[in-house]
Amino acid sequence: MKVLILLAHPEKASLTASLARVAKDQFEKQGDEIQLTDLYAQNWKSAIDIDDFPHYDKSEKFNVILGSKQAYEENAYSEDVKKEHEKLFWADALVFVFPFWWFSMPAILRGWVERVFSYGIGYGRYDDDKKHVRYGDGLFKGKRAMLITGIGGKGNTYSGRSVSGPIEDLLFPINHGIFFYAGYQALPPFVVFDSNFVDENRFKAIESSLRERIATFESTKPIAYRSQNGGDYTIPQLQLKEELAPGKEGFKIHILD
Amino acid sequence: MKVLILLAHPEKASLTASLARVAKDQFEKQGDEIQLTDLYAQNWKSAIDIDDFPHYDKSEKFNVILGSKQAYEENAYSEDVKKEHEKLFWADALVFVFPFWWFSMPAILRGWVERVFSYGIGYGRYDDDKKHVRYGDGLFKGKRAMLITGIGGKGNTYSGRSVSGPIEDLLFPINHGIFFYAGYQALPPFVVFDSNFVDENRFKAIESSLRERIATFESTKPIAYRSQNGGDYTIPQLQLKEELAPGKEGFKIHILD
Repeated sequence: MKVLILLAHPEKASLTASLARVAKDQFEKQGDEIQLTDLYAQNWKSAIDIDDFPHYDKSEKFNVILGSKQAYEENAYSEDVKKEHEKLFWADALVFVFPFWWFSMPAILRGWVERVFSYGIGYGRYDDDKKHVRYGDGLFKGKRAMLITGIGGKGNTYSGRSVSGPIEDLLFPINHGIFFYAGYQALPPFVVFDSNFVDENRFKAIESSLRERIATFESTKPIAYRSQNGGDYTIPQLQLKEELAPGKEGFKIHILD
Repeated sequence: MKVLILLAHPEKASLTASLARVAKDQFEKQGDEIQLTDLYAQNWKSAIDIDDFPHYDKSEKFNVILGSKQAYEENAYSEDVKKEHEKLFWADALVFVFPFWWFSMPAILRGWVERVFSYGIGYGRYDDDKKHVRYGDGLFKGKRAMLITGIGGKGNTYSGRSVSGPIEDLLFPINHGIFFYAGYQALPPFVVFDSNFVDENRFKAIESSLRERIATFESTKPIAYRSQNGGDYTIPQLQLKEELAPGKEGFKIHILD
Protein backbone atom coordinates (compact mmCIF):
# COMPACT_ATOMS: atom_id res chain seq x y z
CA MET A 1 0.00 0.00 0.00
CA LYS A 2 1.12 3.57 -0.71
CA VAL A 3 0.31 6.08 2.00
CA LEU A 4 0.42 9.88 2.07
CA ILE A 5 0.75 11.29 5.59
CA LEU A 6 -0.01 14.95 6.25
CA LEU A 7 1.59 16.41 9.38
CA ALA A 8 0.45 19.76 10.77
CA HIS A 9 2.50 20.83 13.79
CA PRO A 10 5.25 23.44 14.12
CA GLU A 11 7.41 21.44 16.59
CA LYS A 12 9.30 18.27 15.66
CA ALA A 13 9.38 17.13 19.30
CA SER A 14 5.62 17.52 19.76
CA LEU A 15 3.26 14.65 20.51
CA THR A 16 1.67 15.23 17.10
CA ALA A 17 4.98 14.86 15.25
CA SER A 18 5.76 11.77 17.34
CA LEU A 19 2.44 10.19 16.33
CA ALA A 20 3.27 10.86 12.67
CA ARG A 21 6.68 9.20 13.11
CA VAL A 22 5.15 6.13 14.78
CA ALA A 23 2.55 5.79 12.01
CA LYS A 24 5.21 6.15 9.29
CA ASP A 25 7.52 3.66 11.00
CA GLN A 26 4.75 1.08 11.42
CA PHE A 27 3.58 1.40 7.80
CA GLU A 28 7.18 0.98 6.64
CA LYS A 29 7.69 -2.06 8.88
CA GLN A 30 4.72 -3.62 7.12
CA GLY A 31 6.31 -2.96 3.74
CA ASP A 32 4.08 -0.02 2.84
CA GLU A 33 5.51 2.94 0.94
CA ILE A 34 5.21 6.35 2.57
CA GLN A 35 5.34 9.94 1.49
CA LEU A 36 5.06 12.55 4.21
CA THR A 37 4.09 16.18 3.75
CA ASP A 38 5.30 18.14 6.77
CA LEU A 39 3.30 21.31 6.24
CA TYR A 40 5.16 23.54 8.68
CA ALA A 41 8.57 22.32 7.52
CA GLN A 42 7.54 23.00 3.91
CA ASN A 43 6.30 26.47 4.93
CA TRP A 44 3.01 25.59 3.24
CA LYS A 45 0.99 28.56 1.91
CA SER A 46 -2.39 28.35 3.67
CA ALA A 47 -4.48 30.97 1.91
CA ILE A 48 -5.92 30.21 -1.52
CA ASP A 49 -5.66 33.22 -3.85
CA ILE A 50 -5.14 34.21 -7.48
CA ASP A 51 -1.43 33.27 -7.32
CA ASP A 52 -2.54 29.62 -7.16
CA PHE A 53 -3.80 29.89 -10.74
CA PRO A 54 -0.99 30.93 -13.11
CA HIS A 55 -3.34 31.06 -16.14
CA TYR A 56 -5.97 33.26 -14.52
CA ASP A 57 -6.43 36.63 -16.19
CA LYS A 58 -5.47 39.03 -13.41
CA SER A 59 -7.50 41.87 -14.91
CA GLU A 60 -10.68 39.84 -14.33
CA LYS A 61 -12.63 39.47 -11.09
CA PHE A 62 -11.14 36.50 -9.23
CA ASN A 63 -13.55 33.61 -8.68
CA VAL A 64 -12.04 30.73 -6.71
CA ILE A 65 -14.13 27.99 -8.32
CA LEU A 66 -13.60 29.31 -11.86
CA GLY A 67 -9.86 29.57 -11.22
CA SER A 68 -9.74 26.05 -9.89
CA LYS A 69 -11.86 24.74 -12.80
CA GLN A 70 -9.63 26.45 -15.36
CA ALA A 71 -6.51 25.05 -13.66
CA TYR A 72 -8.07 21.56 -13.85
CA GLU A 73 -8.92 21.86 -17.53
CA GLU A 74 -5.52 23.27 -18.46
CA ASN A 75 -3.55 21.30 -15.86
CA ALA A 76 -2.07 24.60 -14.74
CA TYR A 77 -1.42 24.65 -11.02
CA SER A 78 1.20 26.36 -8.90
CA GLU A 79 4.27 24.19 -8.30
CA ASP A 80 3.53 23.40 -4.63
CA VAL A 81 -0.03 22.26 -5.42
CA LYS A 82 1.20 20.16 -8.37
CA LYS A 83 3.58 18.28 -6.08
CA GLU A 84 0.81 17.53 -3.60
CA HIS A 85 -1.51 16.37 -6.38
CA GLU A 86 1.17 13.91 -7.53
CA LYS A 87 1.46 12.45 -4.03
CA LEU A 88 -2.32 12.32 -3.65
CA PHE A 89 -2.83 10.42 -6.92
CA TRP A 90 0.09 8.10 -6.10
CA ALA A 91 -1.32 7.17 -2.67
CA ASP A 92 -3.84 4.43 -1.85
CA ALA A 93 -4.43 5.94 1.55
CA LEU A 94 -4.42 9.36 3.19
CA VAL A 95 -3.64 10.08 6.85
CA PHE A 96 -3.97 13.48 8.55
CA VAL A 97 -1.98 13.97 11.77
CA PHE A 98 -2.75 17.19 13.64
CA PRO A 99 -3.62 18.78 16.99
CA PHE A 100 -7.37 19.40 17.42
CA TRP A 101 -7.47 23.21 17.62
CA TRP A 102 -10.75 25.08 18.00
CA PHE A 103 -12.75 21.96 17.23
CA SER A 104 -11.15 21.29 13.86
CA MET A 105 -7.85 21.03 11.98
CA PRO A 106 -5.17 23.74 12.18
CA ALA A 107 -5.34 26.52 9.57
CA ILE A 108 -2.29 25.19 7.73
CA LEU A 109 -3.93 21.79 7.13
CA ARG A 110 -7.22 23.37 6.16
CA GLY A 111 -5.22 25.44 3.68
CA TRP A 112 -3.83 22.23 2.20
CA VAL A 113 -7.38 20.91 1.71
CA GLU A 114 -8.59 24.19 0.20
CA ARG A 115 -5.74 24.34 -2.31
CA VAL A 116 -5.12 20.63 -3.09
CA PHE A 117 -8.67 19.21 -2.99
CA SER A 118 -9.37 21.45 -5.96
CA TYR A 119 -12.12 21.53 -8.60
CA GLY A 120 -12.44 18.25 -10.52
CA ILE A 121 -10.32 16.51 -7.87
CA GLY A 122 -11.83 17.02 -4.42
CA TYR A 123 -15.10 18.62 -5.55
CA GLY A 124 -16.92 19.68 -8.72
CA ARG A 125 -17.33 16.22 -10.23
CA TYR A 126 -20.41 15.29 -12.25
CA ASP A 127 -21.34 12.15 -14.18
CA ASP A 128 -22.77 12.00 -17.70
CA ASP A 129 -26.27 12.67 -16.36
CA LYS A 130 -24.93 15.77 -14.59
CA LYS A 131 -25.50 14.01 -11.27
CA HIS A 132 -23.24 15.42 -8.55
CA VAL A 133 -20.59 12.78 -7.80
CA ARG A 134 -19.61 12.99 -4.13
CA TYR A 135 -20.17 11.43 -0.70
CA GLY A 136 -18.95 7.91 -1.32
CA ASP A 137 -18.18 8.35 -5.00
CA GLY A 138 -15.48 10.42 -6.62
CA LEU A 139 -11.88 10.32 -7.69
CA PHE A 140 -10.71 8.59 -4.50
CA LYS A 141 -13.33 5.85 -4.35
CA GLY A 142 -11.80 2.60 -3.10
CA LYS A 143 -9.15 4.43 -1.07
CA ARG A 144 -8.98 4.85 2.69
CA ALA A 145 -8.34 7.82 4.95
CA MET A 146 -7.81 8.29 8.67
CA LEU A 147 -7.44 11.08 11.21
CA ILE A 148 -4.86 10.95 13.99
CA THR A 149 -5.33 13.78 16.46
CA GLY A 150 -4.48 14.93 19.96
CA ILE A 151 -7.07 16.80 22.02
CA GLY A 152 -6.28 18.78 25.18
CA GLY A 153 -9.54 17.88 26.95
CA LYS A 154 -10.30 14.62 28.67
CA GLY A 155 -12.34 11.97 26.84
CA ASN A 156 -15.37 12.32 29.10
CA THR A 157 -15.78 15.94 27.97
CA TYR A 158 -16.15 14.75 24.34
CA SER A 159 -18.63 11.94 24.91
CA GLY A 160 -22.36 11.77 24.14
CA ARG A 161 -23.83 14.45 26.40
CA SER A 162 -20.76 16.43 27.37
CA VAL A 163 -20.61 20.19 26.96
CA SER A 164 -18.19 20.18 24.01
CA GLY A 165 -20.25 17.71 21.98
CA PRO A 166 -19.37 14.16 20.97
CA ILE A 167 -16.03 13.78 19.19
CA GLU A 168 -17.67 11.75 16.39
CA ASP A 169 -19.93 14.70 15.57
CA LEU A 170 -17.09 17.23 15.87
CA LEU A 171 -15.02 15.22 13.39
CA PHE A 172 -17.97 14.61 11.03
CA PRO A 173 -17.27 17.72 8.91
CA ILE A 174 -13.81 16.26 8.17
CA ASN A 175 -14.49 12.52 7.96
CA HIS A 176 -17.75 12.93 6.05
CA GLY A 177 -17.44 16.43 4.59
CA ILE A 178 -13.88 16.10 3.26
CA PHE A 179 -12.78 12.43 3.07
CA PHE A 180 -16.08 10.74 2.22
CA TYR A 181 -17.13 13.71 0.08
CA ALA A 182 -14.13 13.07 -2.19
CA GLY A 183 -14.75 9.32 -2.28
CA TYR A 184 -12.49 8.04 0.52
CA GLN A 185 -13.73 5.56 3.09
CA ALA A 186 -13.01 7.19 6.47
CA LEU A 187 -11.67 4.88 9.17
CA PRO A 188 -12.55 5.52 12.83
CA PRO A 189 -10.16 8.25 14.02
CA PHE A 190 -7.24 7.66 16.40
CA VAL A 191 -7.74 10.22 19.16
CA VAL A 192 -5.41 10.98 22.07
CA PHE A 193 -7.33 12.85 24.77
CA ASP A 194 -5.65 14.81 27.57
CA SER A 195 -2.84 15.32 25.07
CA ASN A 196 -0.98 17.97 27.04
CA PHE A 197 -0.09 15.47 29.74
CA VAL A 198 1.61 12.53 28.06
CA ASP A 199 4.59 11.17 29.99
CA GLU A 200 6.93 8.44 28.81
CA ASN A 201 4.81 5.58 30.15
CA ARG A 202 1.61 6.93 28.69
CA PHE A 203 3.32 7.51 25.38
CA LYS A 204 4.37 3.86 25.26
CA ALA A 205 0.75 2.79 25.63
CA ILE A 206 -0.39 5.29 23.00
CA GLU A 207 2.35 4.15 20.62
CA SER A 208 1.31 0.55 21.03
CA SER A 209 -2.37 1.35 20.30
CA LEU A 210 -1.42 3.41 17.27
CA ARG A 211 0.81 0.64 15.87
CA GLU A 212 -2.13 -1.74 16.25
CA ARG A 213 -4.39 0.66 14.35
CA ILE A 214 -1.82 0.97 11.55
CA ALA A 215 -1.33 -2.81 11.48
CA THR A 216 -5.08 -3.22 10.92
CA PHE A 217 -5.43 -0.24 8.58
CA GLU A 218 -6.54 -2.33 5.60
CA SER A 219 -8.91 -4.57 7.56
CA THR A 220 -10.54 -2.01 9.89
CA LYS A 221 -14.19 -1.38 9.09
CA PRO A 222 -14.65 2.19 7.84
CA ILE A 223 -17.34 4.48 9.26
CA ALA A 224 -20.42 3.28 7.39
CA TYR A 225 -21.55 6.58 5.89
CA ARG A 226 -24.41 6.22 3.43
CA SER A 227 -23.40 7.09 -0.13
CA GLN A 228 -25.31 9.99 -1.69
CA ASN A 229 -26.21 8.18 -4.89
CA GLY A 230 -26.63 4.69 -3.41
CA GLY A 231 -30.40 4.80 -2.94
CA ASP A 232 -30.76 6.10 0.64
CA TYR A 233 -31.36 9.71 -0.39
CA THR A 234 -34.07 11.26 -2.53
CA ILE A 235 -32.76 12.69 -5.81
CA PRO A 236 -32.44 15.61 -6.45
CA GLN A 237 -33.50 16.83 -2.96
CA LEU A 238 -30.78 14.73 -1.26
CA GLN A 239 -32.87 14.07 1.85
CA LEU A 240 -32.50 10.80 3.72
CA LYS A 241 -35.57 8.75 2.82
CA GLU A 242 -38.33 8.88 5.43
CA GLU A 243 -38.24 5.18 6.23
CA LEU A 244 -34.53 5.36 7.21
CA ALA A 245 -33.80 6.49 10.80
CA PRO A 246 -37.41 7.73 10.87
CA GLY A 247 -38.05 10.97 12.73
CA LYS A 248 -34.38 11.48 13.58
CA GLU A 249 -32.01 14.32 12.67
CA GLY A 250 -28.33 15.13 13.20
CA PHE A 251 -25.08 13.73 11.80
CA LYS A 252 -25.57 10.17 13.07
CA ILE A 253 -28.45 9.40 10.71
CA HIS A 254 -25.93 9.40 7.84
CA ILE A 255 -24.26 6.30 9.25
CA LEU A 256 -25.77 2.88 8.52
CA ASP A 257 -26.95 1.09 11.67
CA MET B 1 -21.90 49.99 19.66
CA LYS B 2 -18.36 49.20 18.51
CA VAL B 3 -18.08 46.36 16.01
CA LEU B 4 -15.11 44.43 14.69
CA ILE B 5 -15.76 42.81 11.30
CA LEU B 6 -13.46 40.07 10.03
CA LEU B 7 -13.48 39.57 6.25
CA ALA B 8 -11.95 36.45 4.70
CA HIS B 9 -12.07 36.52 0.91
CA PRO B 10 -9.32 37.20 -1.67
CA GLU B 11 -11.53 39.16 -4.11
CA LYS B 12 -12.92 42.63 -3.38
CA ALA B 13 -15.73 42.15 -5.92
CA SER B 14 -16.86 38.83 -4.39
CA LEU B 15 -20.26 38.27 -2.81
CA THR B 16 -18.48 37.80 0.53
CA ALA B 17 -16.75 41.18 0.32
CA SER B 18 -20.04 42.78 -0.74
CA LEU B 19 -21.79 41.33 2.30
CA ALA B 20 -19.07 42.78 4.54
CA ARG B 21 -19.51 46.20 2.90
CA VAL B 22 -23.30 46.09 3.38
CA ALA B 23 -22.91 45.11 7.05
CA LYS B 24 -20.36 47.87 7.64
CA ASP B 25 -22.50 50.46 5.89
CA GLN B 26 -25.62 49.52 7.82
CA PHE B 27 -23.81 49.59 11.19
CA GLU B 28 -22.39 53.03 10.33
CA LYS B 29 -25.80 54.32 9.26
CA GLN B 30 -27.04 53.38 12.73
CA GLY B 31 -24.21 55.35 14.32
CA ASP B 32 -22.14 52.32 15.28
CA GLU B 33 -18.35 52.47 15.07
CA ILE B 34 -16.63 49.89 12.87
CA GLN B 35 -13.18 48.42 12.51
CA LEU B 36 -12.68 45.97 9.69
CA THR B 37 -9.88 43.42 9.42
CA ASP B 38 -9.58 42.38 5.77
CA LEU B 39 -7.43 39.28 6.25
CA TYR B 40 -6.38 38.77 2.64
CA ALA B 41 -5.66 42.48 2.12
CA GLN B 42 -3.51 42.45 5.29
CA ASN B 43 -1.72 39.32 4.06
CA TRP B 44 -2.57 37.75 7.41
CA LYS B 45 -0.18 35.01 8.59
CA SER B 46 -2.33 31.91 9.07
CA ALA B 47 0.00 29.43 10.73
CA ILE B 48 0.78 29.78 14.42
CA ASP B 49 4.45 29.12 15.16
CA ILE B 50 7.32 30.16 17.42
CA ASP B 51 7.67 33.51 15.63
CA ASP B 52 4.38 34.53 17.23
CA PHE B 53 6.08 34.54 20.63
CA PRO B 54 9.05 36.92 20.66
CA HIS B 55 10.03 35.99 24.25
CA TYR B 56 10.06 32.22 23.69
CA ASP B 57 13.46 30.60 24.17
CA LYS B 58 14.16 29.21 20.72
CA SER B 59 16.56 26.57 22.07
CA GLU B 60 13.64 24.97 23.96
CA LYS B 61 11.01 22.61 22.57
CA PHE B 62 8.16 24.75 21.27
CA ASN B 63 4.85 24.25 23.03
CA VAL B 64 2.00 26.34 21.58
CA ILE B 65 0.04 26.66 24.83
CA LEU B 66 3.13 27.51 26.90
CA GLY B 67 4.18 30.07 24.32
CA SER B 68 0.74 31.63 24.35
CA LYS B 69 0.59 31.60 28.19
CA GLN B 70 3.99 33.24 28.45
CA ALA B 71 2.98 35.88 25.92
CA TYR B 72 -0.15 36.59 27.99
CA GLU B 73 1.78 36.93 31.25
CA GLU B 74 4.46 39.14 29.73
CA ASN B 75 2.16 40.91 27.25
CA ALA B 76 4.62 39.96 24.54
CA TYR B 77 2.88 39.28 21.25
CA SER B 78 3.91 39.73 17.65
CA GLU B 79 2.88 43.11 16.23
CA ASP B 80 0.08 41.79 14.00
CA VAL B 81 -1.54 39.87 16.87
CA LYS B 82 -1.21 42.88 19.20
CA LYS B 83 -3.17 45.03 16.74
CA GLU B 84 -5.95 42.45 16.50
CA HIS B 85 -6.12 42.14 20.28
CA GLU B 86 -6.59 45.90 20.54
CA LYS B 87 -9.51 45.81 18.10
CA LEU B 88 -11.02 42.79 19.85
CA PHE B 89 -10.93 44.43 23.30
CA TRP B 90 -12.27 47.68 21.84
CA ALA B 91 -15.26 45.97 20.19
CA ASP B 92 -18.65 45.21 21.77
CA ALA B 93 -19.45 42.85 18.93
CA LEU B 94 -17.63 40.55 16.55
CA VAL B 95 -18.78 39.61 13.03
CA PHE B 96 -17.11 37.02 10.78
CA VAL B 97 -17.81 37.29 7.03
CA PHE B 98 -16.52 34.38 4.97
CA PRO B 99 -17.32 31.79 2.29
CA PHE B 100 -18.24 28.38 3.75
CA TRP B 101 -15.40 26.20 2.46
CA TRP B 102 -15.16 22.51 3.31
CA PHE B 103 -17.84 22.84 5.97
CA SER B 104 -16.07 25.53 7.96
CA MET B 105 -14.23 28.85 7.78
CA PRO B 106 -11.36 29.46 5.32
CA ALA B 107 -7.85 28.68 6.58
CA ILE B 108 -6.94 32.37 6.82
CA LEU B 109 -9.81 33.08 9.25
CA ARG B 110 -9.09 29.95 11.26
CA GLY B 111 -5.52 31.21 11.48
CA TRP B 112 -6.82 34.47 12.92
CA VAL B 113 -8.72 32.56 15.61
CA GLU B 114 -5.71 30.34 16.41
CA ARG B 115 -3.36 33.29 16.81
CA VAL B 116 -5.67 35.99 18.28
CA PHE B 117 -7.97 33.92 20.54
CA SER B 118 -4.85 33.12 22.52
CA TYR B 119 -4.25 31.77 26.04
CA GLY B 120 -5.91 33.85 28.75
CA ILE B 121 -8.01 35.61 26.10
CA GLY B 122 -9.93 33.06 24.03
CA TYR B 123 -9.10 30.00 26.15
CA GLY B 124 -7.17 29.01 29.26
CA ARG B 125 -9.21 31.01 31.77
CA TYR B 126 -9.84 29.74 35.29
CA ASP B 127 -11.57 31.29 38.28
CA ASP B 128 -10.28 31.37 41.87
CA ASP B 129 -11.55 27.82 42.46
CA LYS B 130 -9.62 26.67 39.37
CA LYS B 131 -12.94 26.12 37.64
CA HIS B 132 -12.58 26.28 33.84
CA VAL B 133 -14.23 29.50 32.67
CA ARG B 134 -15.69 29.01 29.21
CA TYR B 135 -18.93 28.30 27.31
CA GLY B 136 -20.98 31.32 28.26
CA ASP B 137 -18.43 32.86 30.62
CA GLY B 138 -15.09 34.39 29.77
CA LEU B 139 -13.46 37.61 28.74
CA PHE B 140 -16.14 38.45 26.17
CA LYS B 141 -19.21 37.81 28.31
CA GLY B 142 -21.94 40.33 27.55
CA LYS B 143 -20.73 40.79 23.98
CA ARG B 144 -22.36 39.51 20.79
CA ALA B 145 -21.01 37.73 17.73
CA MET B 146 -22.46 36.72 14.39
CA LEU B 147 -21.49 34.73 11.31
CA ILE B 148 -22.26 35.94 7.79
CA THR B 149 -21.51 33.27 5.20
CA GLY B 150 -22.19 32.23 1.64
CA ILE B 151 -22.64 28.54 0.80
CA GLY B 152 -22.52 27.11 -2.70
CA GLY B 153 -25.18 24.45 -2.08
CA LYS B 154 -28.91 25.03 -2.01
CA GLY B 155 -30.66 25.43 1.35
CA ASN B 156 -32.55 22.14 1.07
CA THR B 157 -29.23 20.25 1.05
CA TYR B 158 -28.38 21.76 4.46
CA SER B 159 -31.66 21.11 6.24
CA GLY B 160 -32.56 18.54 8.88
CA ARG B 161 -32.10 15.23 7.05
CA SER B 162 -30.09 16.27 4.01
CA VAL B 163 -26.87 14.53 3.05
CA SER B 164 -24.56 17.37 4.09
CA GLY B 165 -26.06 17.70 7.55
CA PRO B 166 -28.04 20.61 9.02
CA ILE B 167 -26.36 24.00 8.76
CA GLU B 168 -26.99 24.67 12.49
CA ASP B 169 -24.93 21.60 13.38
CA LEU B 170 -22.20 22.38 10.84
CA LEU B 171 -21.81 25.87 12.33
CA PHE B 172 -21.98 24.63 15.94
CA PRO B 173 -18.17 24.20 16.23
CA ILE B 174 -17.83 27.93 15.43
CA ASN B 175 -20.89 29.44 17.16
CA HIS B 176 -20.57 27.27 20.27
CA GLY B 177 -16.94 26.11 20.13
CA ILE B 178 -15.37 29.51 19.38
CA PHE B 179 -17.80 32.37 20.11
CA PHE B 180 -19.73 30.95 23.07
CA TYR B 181 -16.58 29.22 24.37
CA ALA B 182 -14.94 32.64 24.75
CA GLY B 183 -18.03 34.18 26.34
CA TYR B 184 -19.81 35.74 23.35
CA GLN B 185 -23.51 35.28 22.78
CA ALA B 186 -23.81 33.91 19.23
CA LEU B 187 -26.63 35.33 17.13
CA PRO B 188 -28.34 33.14 14.53
CA PRO B 189 -26.08 33.18 11.45
CA PHE B 190 -26.88 35.04 8.23
CA VAL B 191 -26.51 32.41 5.51
CA VAL B 192 -26.72 32.92 1.74
CA PHE B 193 -27.28 29.55 0.04
CA ASP B 194 -26.69 28.95 -3.68
CA SER B 195 -24.09 31.68 -3.36
CA ASN B 196 -22.46 31.11 -6.75
CA PHE B 197 -25.58 32.28 -8.54
CA VAL B 198 -26.46 35.71 -7.20
CA ASP B 199 -27.60 38.15 -9.86
CA GLU B 200 -28.41 41.82 -9.31
CA ASN B 201 -32.02 41.23 -8.31
CA ARG B 202 -31.19 38.48 -5.90
CA PHE B 203 -28.42 40.57 -4.41
CA LYS B 204 -30.92 43.37 -3.70
CA ALA B 205 -33.10 40.97 -1.73
CA ILE B 206 -30.08 39.59 0.14
CA GLU B 207 -28.84 43.10 0.92
CA SER B 208 -32.23 44.05 2.28
CA SER B 209 -32.37 40.98 4.56
CA LEU B 210 -28.85 41.60 5.79
CA ARG B 211 -29.58 45.27 6.57
CA GLU B 212 -32.59 44.09 8.58
CA ARG B 213 -30.40 41.63 10.53
CA ILE B 214 -27.85 44.38 11.26
CA ALA B 215 -30.63 46.80 12.25
CA THR B 216 -31.86 44.26 14.82
CA PHE B 217 -28.37 43.14 15.90
CA GLU B 218 -28.79 44.33 19.49
CA SER B 219 -32.33 43.01 19.93
CA THR B 220 -32.08 39.64 18.14
CA LYS B 221 -32.31 36.69 20.53
CA PRO B 222 -28.97 34.84 20.61
CA ILE B 223 -28.79 31.07 20.19
CA ALA B 224 -29.73 29.87 23.70
CA TYR B 225 -26.67 27.71 24.42
CA ARG B 226 -26.55 26.42 27.97
CA SER B 227 -23.66 27.89 29.97
CA GLN B 228 -21.16 25.34 31.28
CA ASN B 229 -21.16 26.63 34.85
CA GLY B 230 -24.82 27.67 35.01
CA GLY B 231 -26.17 24.49 36.60
CA ASP B 232 -27.18 22.40 33.60
CA TYR B 233 -23.98 20.32 33.57
CA THR B 234 -22.48 18.07 36.20
CA ILE B 235 -19.19 19.38 37.63
CA PRO B 236 -16.45 18.27 37.02
CA GLN B 237 -17.69 15.69 34.45
CA LEU B 238 -19.40 18.39 32.36
CA GLN B 239 -22.22 16.12 31.23
CA LEU B 240 -25.67 17.56 30.61
CA LYS B 241 -27.77 16.52 33.59
CA GLU B 242 -29.93 13.47 32.95
CA GLU B 243 -33.23 15.24 33.45
CA LEU B 244 -32.46 17.75 30.67
CA ALA B 245 -33.22 16.57 27.10
CA PRO B 246 -33.44 13.06 28.58
CA GLY B 247 -32.07 10.24 26.43
CA LYS B 248 -30.97 12.59 23.64
CA GLU B 249 -27.50 13.22 22.20
CA GLY B 250 -25.98 15.53 19.57
CA PHE B 251 -25.33 19.25 19.40
CA LYS B 252 -28.94 20.37 19.78
CA ILE B 253 -29.21 19.27 23.42
CA HIS B 254 -26.89 22.15 24.33
CA ILE B 255 -29.53 24.66 23.31
CA LEU B 256 -32.32 25.52 25.77
CA ASP B 257 -35.76 24.55 24.49
